[in-house]
Amino acid sequence: MNEPIVVDSVTALRTQVRDWRQAGLRVAMVPTMGALHDGHISLVRIALERAERCVVSIFVNPTQFAPTEDLDKYPRQLARDLDRLRDAGAHLAFTPGVTEMYPAGFATKISVGGPSGGLETDFRPSFFDGVATVVAKLFVQAAPDCAVFGEKDYQQLCVVRQLCRDLDLPVEIIGAPTVRDAHGLAMSSRNAYLGEAELEIARKLNAVLRQTAARLAAGADETGVTSAAMEALVQAGFRKVDYIAAREAATLAPWRRDRDGRLLAAAWLGTTRLIDNVEIRSA
Amino acid sequence: MNEPIVVDSVTALRTQVRDWRQAGLRVAMVPTMGALHDGHISLVRIALERAERCVVSIFVNPTQFAPTEDLDKYPRQLARDLDRLRDAGAHLAFTPGVTEMYPAGFATKISVGGPSGGLETDFRPSFFDGVATVVAKLFVQAAPDCAVFGEKDYQQLCVVRQLCRDLDLPVEIIGAPTVRDAHGLAMSSRNAYLGEAELEIARKLNAVLRQTAARLAAGADETGVTSAAMEALVQAGFRKVDYIAAREAATLAPWRRDRDGRLLAAAWLGTTRLIDNVEIRSA
Repeated sequence: MNEPIVVDSVTALRTQVRDWRQAGLRVAMVPTMGALHDGHISLVRIALERAERCVVSIFVNPTQFAPTEDLDKYPRQLARDLDRLRDAGAHLAFTPGVTEMYPAGFATKISVGGPSGGLETDFRPSFFDGVATVVAKLFVQAAPDCAVFGEKDYQQLCVVRQLCRDLDLPVEIIGAPTVRDAHGLAMSSRNAYLGEAELEIARKLNAVLRQTAARLAAGADETGVTSAAMEALVQAGFRKVDYIAAREAATLAPWRRDRDGRLLAAAWLGTTRLIDNVEIRSA
Repeated sequence: MNEPIVVDSVTALRTQVRDWRQAGLRVAMVPTMGALHDGHISLVRIALERAERCVVSIFVNPTQFAPTEDLDKYPRQLARDLDRLRDAGAHLAFTPGVTEMYPAGFATKISVGGPSGGLETDFRPSFFDGVATVVAKLFVQAAPDCAVFGEKDYQQLCVVRQLCRDLDLPVEIIGAPTVRDAHGLAMSSRNAYLGEAELEIARKLNAVLRQTAARLAAGADETGVTSAAMEALVQAGFRKVDYIAAREAATLAPWRRDRDGRLLAAAWLGTTRLIDNVEIRSA
């Protein structure tokens, strides 16, 4: 495998991607915050199926963390990330510093409505502003043909689609299935915070979601089964459940039984917050 | 003169500009709300000095009007505008409808801080959100090399520069001197709302600003001379003065005497709101 090109300036990124595109090569982007795991690598693989060149950004974006959140302790392991990207066949790693992305005097914020309403926003009010702003910057900087986002962050995927549509960003957004361990736990950089006993509990999140989605698809009452699911998670050892909610899959509007649905959840294990989501198959 | 190409879809705009750029032609953009006057035409001339192709957008952007403002009565005269653009040598007029720019479900807002603080924002709180959002869309849609904005809307020019810097939009922003009538009145589409007697009064705005800027440059007290200037405008027949304020020219931060300054004003003649600004030459 060739080593990926590593650049930390917007100018170098832009020049390389422009050269590729002018040579007729299709370019895919995978925005990440590093601490790469098998979920990220699956995004790179999908990117390489869709394009001749794959750019991976590694940037722990401070504007999507609240002051109380885990910005400082968020795992950073660049050398290991670059090894994984080389093994996966990515062509370029964009590793900007904070001042490259947010120079002194930076003062702009992008707010996306629609699918950002509720769910994560109820608990992380500025999160999607931070995501939308950095993703718009990355897309304007790199000008890729397409970009791959994991369905693990399902609401984020919907927000990014809305962002591109609203700002006319000519980037095709590809949603990628969540990668899970053998017990159903969704891959997440935050799993690194969990001890062995907590991992056991964490694995129940997906199981409870799948059961609940099956009950919803079979016609069960939405309020009843989501309340029961929250109770089941607390019984299993979760400290707190932020939400379990059924939404329309395409828009994240309230779910209607005649539309494809998505069941989304966020819950706390100790000081670690986990999210997951599953499809609700329409009957 | 050749007729300008007229397109009303983003796809057609994007295709034409891409063709020009791929042919090695530099493309300049002049965003307007139509009702073109000599001020706009001067922007087209400057664009044609800087680029081989000039795109002019004509779009009365609803998101920069407050519900109480003049969106419905804002002058619209497309046929006349196209005649003027042909005479000026513009190559393409982009005339999207509202649903082309803001399709059903549109939900994104761009907020630029920094130079947007105070001045217009004190009186039109959502104005620059509307401007920033539509300008970002136009730049992403057209992908011009440069764009020309008039210094008449000086705060807007500063906000657009900040927007491009913050979102990494690769568009060079060119500020163009304000075009005035023989009596100093800045050209504005809103001058069309004024009767002959009001036009006489309107011409005092620039004279008062020039006198006041000269006094500031000569060392006069800022609060004293700006208060006197507001009083002078009311005496001259203005119904109300929203602000007269000295700011640092580059950032619109509070003016310091060792920096280049700008004196900016907004005032009402009957139901018409006029703005203007002049340089404060440092001593």
